[in-house]
Amino acid sequence: MRRLPTVSDVAEAAGVSRQTVSNVLNTPEIVRAETTERVRAAIERLGYRPHASARRLRTRRSSTIGVRLDPGADGMSGSLLDRFLHALVERADADGLRVLLYTAVDEDAEIATFERLLDGADVDALVLTSTHYGDRRIPWLVEHDVRFVTFGRPWGEHDTTDRSHRWVDVDGRVGVRAATASLLEQGHRRIAFLGWPEGSGTGDDRRAGWREAMLAAGVPDADMTALDLGVEEDPLDLGIGGRAVAAVAPRPDAVVCASDSLALGARLALGPDVPVVGYDDTPVARALGFPSVAQPLDEVAAAVLELLASDEGDHHRLLAPRLVRR
Amino acid sequence: MRRLPTVSDVAEAAGVSRQTVSNVLNTPEIVRAETTERVRAAIERLGYRPHASARRLRTRRSSTIGVRLDPGADGMSGSLLDRFLHALVERADADGLRVLLYTAVDEDAEIATFERLLDGADVDALVLTSTHYGDRRIPWLVEHDVRFVTFGRPWGEHDTTDRSHRWVDVDGRVGVRAATASLLEQGHRRIAFLGWPEGSGTGDDRRAGWREAMLAAGVPDADMTALDLGVEEDPLDLGIGGRAVAAVAPRPDAVVCASDSLALGARLALGPDVPVVGYDDTPVARALGFPSVAQPLDEVAAAVLELLASDEGDHHRLLAPRLVRR
Repeated sequence: MRRLPTVSDVAEAAGVSRQTVSNVLNTPEIVRAETTERVRAAIERLGYRPHASARRLRTRRSSTIGVRLDPGADGMSGSLLDRFLHALVERADADGLRVLLYTAVDEDAEIATFERLLDGADVDALVLTSTHYGDRRIPWLVEHDVRFVTFGRPWGEHDTTDRSHRWVDVDGRVGVRAATASLLEQGHRRIAFLGWPEGSGTGDDRRAGWREAMLAAGVPDADMTALDLGVEEDPLDLGIGGRAVAAVAPRPDAVVCASDSLALGARLALGPDVPVVGYDDTPVARALGFPSVAQPLDEVAAAVLELLASDEGDHHRLLAPRLVRR
Repeated sequence: MRRLPTVSDVAEAAGVSRQTVSNVLNTPEIVRAETTERVRAAIERLGYRPHASARRLRTRRSSTIGVRLDPGADGMSGSLLDRFLHALVERADADGLRVLLYTAVDEDAEIATFERLLDGADVDALVLTSTHYGDRRIPWLVEHDVRFVTFGRPWGEHDTTDRSHRWVDVDGRVGVRAATASLLEQGHRRIAFLGWPEGSGTGDDRRAGWREAMLAAGVPDADMTALDLGVEEDPLDLGIGGRAVAAVAPRPDAVVCASDSLALGARLALGPDVPVVGYDDTPVARALGFPSVAQPLDEVAAAVLELLASDEGDHHRLLAPRLVRR
């Protein structure tokens, strides 16, 4: 790979010691003018430039943020994290920060990667995605005094009180509540919720938004049970949600979904006459023309970098999503 | 951000000079045993670790590959580059290489970014995607003696002869020829090609595969003109391909497409009775159950890293795609 000129090359070209080159660069006031000139000429001639690594070595800071490239990127909702990554890289670049990617097959591997990246000062902060109940990465980072922000809540008791965990999230409950309310306004009443099995923070939060809107519209709790559908998503079987919703009798008037891939399944199973609303506003929602709840990923990226940069103010941000009507 | 212990911290803790710490780390044979022991104890106590930046500074190598995060990632085909990036990060990690992301709004901005990244030795090699006719990035990199590999051919006269441009690509012509042949085997004859306007290397290559298969099946050149459709894709208007194909009279028997988003448009316009074949095997093709040409992205990533690492052998690799039948 490409070899850049070193301090030794400059020293040799100028006929001085490496220490003298270093003095010219760092403490020119102690070097004789004639020597300084000779060293500067060699620097110019060789195209030597004080090195980012030298700067990092002095400051012990890399100005680099580590971000895991999520293995789920192959699915439709995976594109959400790719779009977040894009917004983050653009904003970080404007702030003079770099984004270094890593992958990890599980939490243990990810924690081992943290150690490696931090020990080498390859990164000095981390941005985590795909947080979940009992996420072991969080206590590890807190214990090791690592600067980090998660896109996603801790999903625990201390969501908003534990200042050691900085996070940015989008209020899925509010988004799904708005989506359900828009279907209720259109006169639909038997509105199914097609989400994931209970137990995921994100999924339960979105389900709560549906329940709240239905209760507010006077739908009895008992009527909701048959309309509350949780399926394990499978990127290789996008029909799974459609089969679940097609099995509901009598057929729902409309379906509000925890993801666009679930909404696609519902749309394909029920046809275009049953309104569906998706989540994440992916190209699929635009292609098939169904409404979807959009996460404000630019705002999320900006908030993540703000929380990384400053100890002032709130340690978390819960941003509002937007229902894209179609 | 996190501050790691420095050589100065170790020197202070051990009551020696920074030079002595450096000697213990680099030339321990010249240091007295007792001093070495004191310095090592301080290193252990403070958790000091010789720094990745120090290693980089010595070697002038960062073991980091720069990759542009493509602005097209929001569309359906954009997910292809995200999947390639994922394969690349995983394979690079196994080789001890890191991937640093950057963004750029246009070629000038990207070339300015190259200068910045290379001057600071933040990266020592680049992987480029989205190559095209007259790509100005390539001559710049060649002229500046930068190590790089493109995912995508130069799309010029010297594709396979110019050894200064290393590239990996997938043979789209072969993929679309196989897709068209599979439709011909099923007895279809009026097979439309839905692609992009003439002038893009990738698009014209895929179109050539359709033409070859049709000619081989004895379809006269004149019959092909009305079936050869080129539209400007628009991520906000995925119906554009569907409208083009619906306007063909008499209606085509089948449609082979240059992308899955074009195939989706054709499927929505013509209904499930007219077979369509897509390209890139995205989640949309899986969801709607139409066949698609899959690019072997793991193989592409492996070949990119091989070409980056070695000067031996071919300077390019043209890999075969695979028709995923459904």
